[in-house]
Amino acid sequence: MNALPITFIGAGNVGTHLARRFHDTGFRVVQVFSRDKSKAEALAGSIGADAVDQLSGIVAHTGLYILAVRDDAIAEIGGQLADVGIRDGLFAHTSGATPASVLQPYFGRFGIFYPLQTFSPQRTPDFLDIPICIQASVPEDESLLKTIACAVGKQAVVMEERQRIALHVAAVFVNNFSNYLYQRGQHILEKEELSFDLLLPLIRETAEKVRHLPPNAAQTGPAVRGDKKTIARHLEYLQETPDDAALYETMTRLIVNAAKKK
Amino acid sequence: MNALPITFIGAGNVGTHLARRFHDTGFRVVQVFSRDKSKAEALAGSIGADAVDQLSGIVAHTGLYILAVRDDAIAEIGGQLADVGIRDGLFAHTSGATPASVLQPYFGRFGIFYPLQTFSPQRTPDFLDIPICIQASVPEDESLLKTIACAVGKQAVVMEERQRIALHVAAVFVNNFSNYLYQRGQHILEKEELSFDLLLPLIRETAEKVRHLPPNAAQTGPAVRGDKKTIARHLEYLQETPDDAALYETMTRLIVNAAKKK
Repeated sequence: MNALPITFIGAGNVGTHLARRFHDTGFRVVQVFSRDKSKAEALAGSIGADAVDQLSGIVAHTGLYILAVRDDAIAEIGGQLADVGIRDGLFAHTSGATPASVLQPYFGRFGIFYPLQTFSPQRTPDFLDIPICIQASVPEDESLLKTIACAVGKQAVVMEERQRIALHVAAVFVNNFSNYLYQRGQHILEKEELSFDLLLPLIRETAEKVRHLPPNAAQTGPAVRGDKKTIARHLEYLQETPDDAALYETMTRLIVNAAKKK
Repeated sequence: MNALPITFIGAGNVGTHLARRFHDTGFRVVQVFSRDKSKAEALAGSIGADAVDQLSGIVAHTGLYILAVRDDAIAEIGGQLADVGIRDGLFAHTSGATPASVLQPYFGRFGIFYPLQTFSPQRTPDFLDIPICIQASVPEDESLLKTIACAVGKQAVVMEERQRIALHVAAVFVNNFSNYLYQRGQHILEKEELSFDLLLPLIRETAEKVRHLPPNAAQTGPAVRGDKKTIARHLEYLQETPDDAALYETMTRLIVNAAKKK
C-alpha cells in the first residue's frame, strides 16, 4: 500500500495539508504539481517529493492522483492531464460540492477523497479528528480510498453523490455561516470598544455543547424562551445596522418555528 | 470578604452553577430561595446553605443578594423583597439584557453580575474561562463586585448599560444563532441518514480558529470565494426546504457584502 505512488495536483490549502499528512503517515508522494512554481517547490521540498510546474512534467503511473484544485478547475485539469497522456491511475478530487462525474470523460478510474474540515495556512489540522468522504467509480478503488482515508484521517465514510452534497451544504451552515455570525459579534463589540476575546469562551462552549447534547435540545436564548421584551431591546439596539436587525428577526422567527415543530 | 453573607434568589441554571462556584471558591452562601422547594433544597443542600421557599423566610443582612431569576421576574422579585423588608444589602441580577435600573425603585445599592456564558444542567461550566460583566449604582459596590467576579470567574469587566446590551446581542448571534445553524446541519444529515457526529470536528475547528484569526479573516466558503456554481448546487439541494434556502441566500448575500467592505 505504502509503495503506491501518489501525485498531488494542486498545492493550495487542502493540497498542502493533505500531502503533508500522506507523507507523515508513510505514503509515498512522488510529485507535487502546481502552476505556481514556488508553491510546488515549497510543498514538494517539505515531503521529499519532486516539484513540477508543467503538465508535461507529470509522470504517468497507475497509483493515485489527488486533484486538490479549485472546484471550477477540476474538470479542466482532468482534461489537460488526459491530453498529456496521464490517464491510467486513480483520479480523486477533494471537493465536497463537485460531482465525481466531472472526471468521467477523461478517466476510467475516478472518485472523491473529501476531508470534511476547514483548512487554513496558519493552522495544522488534527487529521485524527477528520472524517474523509469517499466515492469511487470502481469497487476496488473504493476499498483503496477507504484504506487510505482510514490511515490518514479519523474515519472513511463512503457516500453517494447526493449525501456528499448534503454534507457540504450542512458544512456551509455550521462553518461559513457560523463564522459570519462571529463576524457580527466582532463588529458589535468593536463598535462598543469591547474586546472580541470576551466572546471566545461562549463560542467555544456553544461548539462543545453539541458534542453532548443534540443542537435542537441545546437551543437557548430569548427566541426559544419567547422573551419578547429582550427581543425588543435587542432590535432597538440593532436599529442602526438594518442588515443585522433583519438577520436577527429572521433567525428569531426560524428558532421559534423549529421549537414549535419539536 | 469571604465572611460576606450571600443569598441566592433563584435556583435555576445560572443560580445553581453560580452558587456552587461561589461556595467552591470559599464564599459563604447563607440561603437559597426558590418557590420550587425541591430546587431550593437540592442546591442549598449541596453547598451548606439554608433552603427557603417563602419570601418571608429570607434573612435580612447587608451582604450580597444575587437575583438569578428570569429576566421578566427581576423587577417583580425586587419589589417583593423590598416589601418583606429585605432592602439593605447589595442587590445584583445576573441578566445581560435587563437594565440595572429595574432594581432602582426598591434598593439603594443595586447592580449587575452577569457571567457571559451559556449554562445547561448537564454541563459543569469552566468558570476560570468566564468573563463576568459588572455594574453597580455605588462605586464601593463596583469594587466589591469586581473582587468577587475576579475570584469566581476569569475576569471582571466593568461596563455601561449600552455595552452590556450590545454584548448580550453579540452573544445571541454567536451562541443562539450558531446553535440554530447546527440544528439545520443536524436536520440535513438526518434526512440523508448520515450521523451528525460527522460535523463535530468542523464545528469545533470553526470555533477554535477565531481564537487565532479574527472572524473576518477566517471567512471561507463559496460565498466569499464568489463560487456561483457551488452556490447554485447548494440552492438546488435546498429547494425542498424553502426556509433553509432563504436563509442560505440571505447569509450568502451578507457574507459577500461583508467581504466587499473589507
